[in-house]
Amino acid sequence: MQFTSEQHLDDDVIERAFSLGEIPGILWTPVAASASAPVPLILLGHPPLGLHKMYPRLVARARDAVADGFAAATIELPGSGDRPRSAAAEQARTALRRTVEAGEPVDAETVDALVLPLVDKAVPEWQAALDALLSLPGIGGPVGYSGGVISIGIRLAAVEPRISAAVLFAGSLVPAAMVEEARRITVPLHVLLQWDDEGNDRQAALDLFDAFGSKEKTLHANMGGHTGVPQFAGDAAAQFFIRHLK
Amino acid sequence: MQFTSEQHLDDDVIERAFSLGEIPGILWTPVAASASAPVPLILLGHPPLGLHKMYPRLVARARDAVADGFAAATIELPGSGDRPRSAAAEQARTALRRTVEAGEPVDAETVDALVLPLVDKAVPEWQAALDALLSLPGIGGPVGYSGGVISIGIRLAAVEPRISAAVLFAGSLVPAAMVEEARRITVPLHVLLQWDDEGNDRQAALDLFDAFGSKEKTLHANMGGHTGVPQFAGDAAAQFFIRHLK
Repeated sequence: MQFTSEQHLDDDVIERAFSLGEIPGILWTPVAASASAPVPLILLGHPPLGLHKMYPRLVARARDAVADGFAAATIELPGSGDRPRSAAAEQARTALRRTVEAGEPVDAETVDALVLPLVDKAVPEWQAALDALLSLPGIGGPVGYSGGVISIGIRLAAVEPRISAAVLFAGSLVPAAMVEEARRITVPLHVLLQWDDEGNDRQAALDLFDAFGSKEKTLHANMGGHTGVPQFAGDAAAQFFIRHLK
Repeated sequence: MQFTSEQHLDDDVIERAFSLGEIPGILWTPVAASASAPVPLILLGHPPLGLHKMYPRLVARARDAVADGFAAATIELPGSGDRPRSAAAEQARTALRRTVEAGEPVDAETVDALVLPLVDKAVPEWQAALDALLSLPGIGGPVGYSGGVISIGIRLAAVEPRISAAVLFAGSLVPAAMVEEARRITVPLHVLLQWDDEGNDRQAALDLFDAFGSKEKTLHANMGGHTGVPQFAGDAAAQFFIRHLK
């Protein structure tokens, strides 16, 4: 892991860009962190639109996390931002776009082709990032994962024992195979669902929530459309991490 | 409204029993309330098991409400506690018990016979209690309604303009007519659902949540069975009232 830039966002937050091999990432830490005890870490998931495009929302989430006493970090997803495109992924995206534009139901094959290769590639990268991040001074466990492509969160929570709690956003297509993986998750989960999210299958999201194996799982359903998660829902998710990571 | 007893529960809470005609009730207020500005009021709903039996849970909810800067009040439901039984209601309860014990699905007629007369009788009583409570010094608006028989909460939120926000517990049978009334509600709602509540029809609860007309409505689904609402879910409901009544 190599740091490529560092800036103070204000008196409280240090933002450092890094690269982990070919993968760019960003780390946000409290200014006071190096002097005090290591802080827990929240991994910030995001949709595959590229870190640059997602930056405004990511930095807002990171500032909130740091204000709550956490470090926060994210990495670019495979095939997003400046990372090399995969022909198969581009083909799957095109197929999805055509299906949606034609007003047709999205079939399982299209979902699998779109999501499963992304999960297979992204999850080991998040794990490698975790190795590097947890070796830094000032960052300790426990670790939370928050948001983004829900199938990446499912796989990470299912296979990575260092993830102690996860906030998942039920806002994207989920392959049937991931629903099966969801049954293996045991860590506390806080699941956000936008009830009136037109691009999302509500029943599939409810079935997924039902499948999670965790004894403590909470579903927070709100109004406001796909991108309209209310401020109070974000606050409740923050409280969930404070309860479980501190 | 006549006060029949008064006691300090500790340094912070005054508990007063009252009767409103034939209806017994309890009012909890902050000790400091009379000296300062009027506090908002939360009406504490409860299942039809009698105030005496429900007292431990009610007083715990009342203490939390007072600690958050509210007054809290409740009244006995028609046909519960020491109030006269209704032959029709007893018959409906017996029919329900037999159906459940026989492992048969509860039909719409049984639900209607059990719930609709209770709602018709209870709601005007809660409104009369509201008249009396809001005329007391130290108690002002706005008013919240919390918990108990959800159909009573639905009717109150639909017809009583002094209710500004409601926390509803999706844990009891809801007549189809009440789902229609739910569409007329416009105040912010915070709905609790115990996901693994064996005595409750989850799909009916989700359909009811979908029906609520409110622009701001939130569903919090948790594990733990009918009576196992987690502490953090109670805390989130309290935050909802602080956001809307203060």
